[in-house]
Amino acid sequence: MKIYLAGPEVFHREAEAIGKAKASLCQQYGHEGLFPLDAGVDGTDLMPHDHGLAIYRADVAMMEACDVIIANVTPFRGPHADPGTAFELGYMRAQAKTCLAYSNMPGLLAARIVSGDEAGRDATGLAIEDFGMADNLMLEGAVTEAGGIHMPEMLSEDDLYWDFRAFEACLKALD
Amino acid sequence: MKIYLAGPEVFHREAEAIGKAKASLCQQYGHEGLFPLDAGVDGTDLMPHDHGLAIYRADVAMMEACDVIIANVTPFRGPHADPGTAFELGYMRAQAKTCLAYSNMPGLLAARIVSGDEAGRDATGLAIEDFGMADNLMLEGAVTEAGGIHMPEMLSEDDLYWDFRAFEACLKALD
Repeated sequence: MKIYLAGPEVFHREAEAIGKAKASLCQQYGHEGLFPLDAGVDGTDLMPHDHGLAIYRADVAMMEACDVIIANVTPFRGPHADPGTAFELGYMRAQAKTCLAYSNMPGLLAARIVSGDEAGRDATGLAIEDFGMADNLMLEGAVTEAGGIHMPEMLSEDDLYWDFRAFEACLKALD
Repeated sequence: MKIYLAGPEVFHREAEAIGKAKASLCQQYGHEGLFPLDAGVDGTDLMPHDHGLAIYRADVAMMEACDVIIANVTPFRGPHADPGTAFELGYMRAQAKTCLAYSNMPGLLAARIVSGDEAGRDATGLAIEDFGMADNLMLEGAVTEAGGIHMPEMLSEDDLYWDFRAFEACLKALD
């Protein structure tokens, strides 16, 4: 099967190597992993906004070609998953494709959000979702049939993008 | 048309009133706005995780019933959109439904992210997307045909969830 490898590691300094490592693991399980890093778009002659749109279109085409998504929903710049990854999970789910997810920051969402003065609300007064889930219920709901959001034991900050145990748990769940 | 009203205001203390105000604006433009606050799910007898999943299923059913999504991608707990909203935007986009979005925090993504020591990277070394877009390129790409991410002039923190000018710009773009 073709697997869309969604996650914020596309922004990592070593994105290319991380993508190769994940694709290699996919191969070990008999699948083909497609990593959306720039999706082969050459932006040299494009204005930034057009370059961004070209990557969007290439990523959509890549999702259309895939049967499965494994989404890395590790919290990104805050307590929640990267919105690009969340978008892609929704995109694949709507097409009834197999959706799996993992997070390299174990623990529940509610435990990651700093509480404000008011019970059950954050510092800006917004409710903290407390459903015993790792992130927003739309993300967890999308992958429930596939075993929920897979998580490793606690790991160090250095390993956040280089630990593939939870990713591999998704590959195993796929078999 | 039936419009799915996605956004993090479902977590607001005044969520119900905000949802009513948005639905009322939809009606003025001849549409029906559906606000996913709990989606009518009674969770009294459910364990938290099952309650969350019941809301997920009800929200998905509501999206299936809608022709359009207007996504509030105002930054939520950080520089990015709420991942639940991003998921829903992807879900509707995959079904080729009309996708619109607005943000009540005007300005470009790159301007909202604190830079680290390295050029073009945040404090944790992750690349800052700099495509002249308001958020992740998947979100902006999904709504480009509908005029991009609509934004008002700068507004106060108090109005963040109560200013409907950019939301109304989406309704106008829909006509």
